[in-house]
Amino acid sequence: MPTPSERLSELGLSLPKAPEPVAAYIPSKKSGNLLYISGQLPMRDGVLMATGTVPGAVSLATAQECARQCVLNGLAVAAAAAGSLENVAQVIRVGGFVASDPGFSDQPKVINGASELLQEIFGESGRHARAAVGSVALPLDACVEVELLLELKG
Amino acid sequence: MPTPSERLSELGLSLPKAPEPVAAYIPSKKSGNLLYISGQLPMRDGVLMATGTVPGAVSLATAQECARQCVLNGLAVAAAAAGSLENVAQVIRVGGFVASDPGFSDQPKVINGASELLQEIFGESGRHARAAVGSVALPLDACVEVELLLELKG
Amino acid sequence: MPTPSERLSELGLSLPKAPEPVAAYIPSKKSGNLLYISGQLPMRDGVLMATGTVPGAVSLATAQECARQCVLNGLAVAAAAAGSLENVAQVIRVGGFVASDPGFSDQPKVINGASELLQEIFGESGRHARAAVGSVALPLDACVEVELLLELKG
Repeated sequence: MPTPSERLSELGLSLPKAPEPVAAYIPSKKSGNLLYISGQLPMRDGVLMATGTVPGAVSLATAQECARQCVLNGLAVAAAAAGSLENVAQVIRVGGFVASDPGFSDQPKVINGASELLQEIFGESGRHARAAVGSVALPLDACVEVELLLELKG
Repeated sequence: MPTPSERLSELGLSLPKAPEPVAAYIPSKKSGNLLYISGQLPMRDGVLMATGTVPGAVSLATAQECARQCVLNGLAVAAAAAGSLENVAQVIRVGGFVASDPGFSDQPKVINGASELLQEIFGESGRHARAAVGSVALPLDACVEVELLLELKG
Repeated sequence: MPTPSERLSELGLSLPKAPEPVAAYIPSKKSGNLLYISGQLPMRDGVLMATGTVPGAVSLATAQECARQCVLNGLAVAAAAAGSLENVAQVIRVGGFVASDPGFSDQPKVINGASELLQEIFGESGRHARAAVGSVALPLDACVEVELLLELKG
């Protein structure tokens, strides 16, 4: 079995620099072996990949790619907090918020961009509970925000 | 004291078949003795009971009934994961999202459909912390989505 | 180092009476040493400080003040549940929902009203993970709702 870091390489991906919080909070907080990762925006190289609501301003495909980027950012935060991805025991929960036009109902497809990548990287341990919902508007006008709850190895 | 399963029978209710996730996640995930149940939609016999926003497209009363169905679905997931409802120690948290027209402010009444049923089934252990909010649009155009956090018996 | 209660006094603040839930849930629920605080509205002396969406009906500055009040209310709940604020070990997570006009993107600034007060009161232990999002409409037409997850001392 490849490790999560090895899987990331096999997928042709690498972790970005962990993004700085956009306000007065910290990127993650630990309680026992639970690591709470703050809501991640689809920042890539310091800029948002897409802004506005889905599907009017942002296509479903782009929003999925953004959800995937949120996971990369969240895992960068996790690796910084836990030493490495190899110290993540399980992905417990994903919370996904999709900036949505009224009537848009494909939030699950958007957040699959996040969920599928977690499973590609962590395998069975990457499978998680999830809530995905629409939001009228998100921070910095981002099209998606993803929050992670991880369990670390003892 | 009747058990949760006995209470369910006394209420004339039974657990449905645990719904399949509508996307790339799993119905529940356990960390320690915490069981995170994925956001549940008001599916009954495989179809959504009501779609659209409250109160324009869905009445308050229907939305409450939908929130109640979300709990039944979530408890079906819990029973499948934990063996039976009797292995649930406490209901810890309910997260409720109500598809809302602008200006709708009775999300608490809607989500009471969920909260009251949990107390009817689990008694004092069913009382929980809660956040209820409005959402511009929900998955599959559902009018309500309910997420549960349960504590299992050691 | 001043205790959280001493810091509160130094800031010229005091805890209000813990607000009653507005519906069929309880103000907080404990699992292990985690204390889940229900979503708090900006009630002060029994009335909402501001209603409607930001920034159309409620200014950014008022919304920040409301987020701060949500924290005071949540800490009143925590003190009632845990005996005193001195029994809080850490603030783990803040969930912030801001009633938002379409296109409003300063939810992080609004929820900073909550986050900054937590850090002023608890110092380093008050720093937390966070998700802040927009909501089309909130309970009782409140402009903001804040949920807290706290870790209590062993």
